[in-house]
Amino acid sequence: MSLLLRDVQLGRETTHIYVEGNRIEEIGAVREADTVIEGKGKIALPGLVNLHTHAAMTIFRGYADDVPLRMWLETKIWPAEAKLKPEDVYWGTKLACLEMIKTGTTTFSDMYFHMDQAAKAVKEMGLRGFLAEGFIDMNDPSVGREMLRRTEEINRRIESLRLERIVPVLGPHAIYTVTEESLHAIEDLADRMGYLIHMHLSETLNEVDECVARHGVRPAQYLDGIGFLTRNVIAAHACWVEPAEIELLARAGVKVAHCPVSNMKLALGTMPYPALREAGIVIGLGTDGAASNNNLDMFESMKFAAILQKHAHRDPRVLPAREAFEMASLGGARALGIDAGLLEVGRLADIILIDPRRPEFLPQHDVLSNVVYAAHGNIVDTVVCDGQVLMKARRVKGEAEILEKAARVADDISTRA
Amino acid sequence: MSLLLRDVQLGRETTHIYVEGNRIEEIGAVREADTVIEGKGKIALPGLVNLHTHAAMTIFRGYADDVPLRMWLETKIWPAEAKLKPEDVYWGTKLACLEMIKTGTTTFSDMYFHMDQAAKAVKEMGLRGFLAEGFIDMNDPSVGREMLRRTEEINRRIESLRLERIVPVLGPHAIYTVTEESLHAIEDLADRMGYLIHMHLSETLNEVDECVARHGVRPAQYLDGIGFLTRNVIAAHACWVEPAEIELLARAGVKVAHCPVSNMKLALGTMPYPALREAGIVIGLGTDGAASNNNLDMFESMKFAAILQKHAHRDPRVLPAREAFEMASLGGARALGIDAGLLEVGRLADIILIDPRRPEFLPQHDVLSNVVYAAHGNIVDTVVCDGQVLMKARRVKGEAEILEKAARVADDISTRA
Repeated sequence: MSLLLRDVQLGRETTHIYVEGNRIEEIGAVREADTVIEGKGKIALPGLVNLHTHAAMTIFRGYADDVPLRMWLETKIWPAEAKLKPEDVYWGTKLACLEMIKTGTTTFSDMYFHMDQAAKAVKEMGLRGFLAEGFIDMNDPSVGREMLRRTEEINRRIESLRLERIVPVLGPHAIYTVTEESLHAIEDLADRMGYLIHMHLSETLNEVDECVARHGVRPAQYLDGIGFLTRNVIAAHACWVEPAEIELLARAGVKVAHCPVSNMKLALGTMPYPALREAGIVIGLGTDGAASNNNLDMFESMKFAAILQKHAHRDPRVLPAREAFEMASLGGARALGIDAGLLEVGRLADIILIDPRRPEFLPQHDVLSNVVYAAHGNIVDTVVCDGQVLMKARRVKGEAEILEKAARVADDISTRA
Repeated sequence: MSLLLRDVQLGRETTHIYVEGNRIEEIGAVREADTVIEGKGKIALPGLVNLHTHAAMTIFRGYADDVPLRMWLETKIWPAEAKLKPEDVYWGTKLACLEMIKTGTTTFSDMYFHMDQAAKAVKEMGLRGFLAEGFIDMNDPSVGREMLRRTEEINRRIESLRLERIVPVLGPHAIYTVTEESLHAIEDLADRMGYLIHMHLSETLNEVDECVARHGVRPAQYLDGIGFLTRNVIAAHACWVEPAEIELLARAGVKVAHCPVSNMKLALGTMPYPALREAGIVIGLGTDGAASNNNLDMFESMKFAAILQKHAHRDPRVLPAREAFEMASLGGARALGIDAGLLEVGRLADIILIDPRRPEFLPQHDVLSNVVYAAHGNIVDTVVCDGQVLMKARRVKGEAEILEKAARVADDISTRA
């Protein structure tokens, strides 16, 4: 199967992008293709990569806002999650995929429960998904062993889909919810199977304080001490990492997922971007789940990332538009080890077309500035992922059914609570 | 002329809003009307009030980002502004009005140059505009006298339009750009003519330091000392006001325009919201100009306001969704002294309909949470201002021409620079 994106603006030129299978085969020539998309007046960009989310939590959007994290989890989210059915995760993930497609995300790195259901949703929606079954043993080794069996089973089911674009990952929730024994078992499994590991790290000051009290060292030092830090690890948040920890993360090749909106909304802190960048750490951008953001719009998250860092460091030069865009595209792709995040021959055909003919995108003194600071995800007109057209003229197949079913599932959850 | 918004969701009910002239005459009954808008499935909200912007600066969107304020002004903005033609302001304001309409703003409080041109644009676009000719004398009393004459002339021209919805305002730029003599003259004129006064106050720490060095007191204290603080004054930013100053502002009835996006992007500071609120100060929300934001989307600014304050005070309970929405609607309306910002019988017919049938607005556990945290301005379907329909199904009259002309003006500015 082949696809031609005709007359699109790429950088400063108007050109054509030819896709064969799931890769960009040629840029420049008009070639015959099974599908042709007329891109005149539209700007081609790499599909965005959401490096940290909990997709199915779309069903908890607006369910509990403006409350402290602990209260949020203990009185609202955990009780509701305890009653979650596999079908809820399926429809929640479908809704999330729909929202991601409509806002230009082509790849996401997810952590939640019933991930075989998430995989089914991702398969149908056409996105590229890195799916981690959330692993929490609450310091009970026997629960840990059970969780490990469950994770292996779920990952086998995901692998049985045999789709290059759906990748099972391991998801130890955090150092305060997973025993050291389980962390070792997870690491062994990752080594044996080549899995990535997706976990929360230093999201809250509380996590750091508890770690210091229990282990005498800070979270990244603790993980380093037990030999857990490797280039397979994607650490979400990293708000409270100190210089010595940053050095450990950098040396081990750990990747970091920055989630500025969630961190601000829950009032948890600010990832020290300049120091992480200086250390050469690969940084991607995440929205976090819709319960703590409350959307999955990576365009919005780019703006938050760029201006939160300026604000935090009292310097408007920090994290310019170009770096924010890179964090949302190439940074995430590098963290996940995929050939995406750039529009080049040989890369994966994960491509979005944006339509700049709207007031907030005018004038075009600087396209990337407009993308990061002026636009939102609704500027996305066309989405191609893995060589397949997922959205054209903002239409996605099955949208009405997803909206209806997801609303019904969310209503049902409200009545259960 | 009458208008009926039929079957709209208002709070928890589905009802009908009947408008006669420019006021809401009845809520509840279906009445015959000259124009009927079918609102089934849509949610009615008061039109948003942008309390601080420089509308025509849309033409400088993306012109200079990621640089310090001083450099931004001195090397980029001021040289470009020196070459501004009246026509540039006209088209820049048209573009801004188009963007505001498409993102649900019905009233804005503006400060810029050639405001008779802005008034012409606002007249054509149908918005409610409070227009202040920017007053800068750079500490030269003779320039001040000339600026005063110019301001009076411009305001007379604006008044000659004889439109209730277009209101001339006085716009002393800031205490470091306007002499005390001019401030007195402006205050006299405001008293005599009943004008509001719109100025920047304590936007930067530099402004505070200079004021202390020159006058021995902080900015609000200086203004209080010269008798300038009255209930006519709308102070934009107020990032660096201390408790003693907050007390002065509250006692005088000064209103404050909070501009979180601009403050963060230029890395200037954070308005102390809890203290201002505690003091009972009326607070509205502003986008600031598109050169430092870079859009005019009040939905986005609501989210930034809500989560910046949580972040700044390390408390997720600060500035909940309801208060952010109020800041963007009733707060601004109260600051400007207009009967808007609430949908009630007798109020001005400044009404928007949003269309919640989209992934980011689902589920609807909490409509205001979705409005503030999940949605952007593109959710707005219909805009009514002063009883007139300005947008229906996202279509605004003359959109294509505005986009084309504004782009041409911006190109011309680039080549002039």
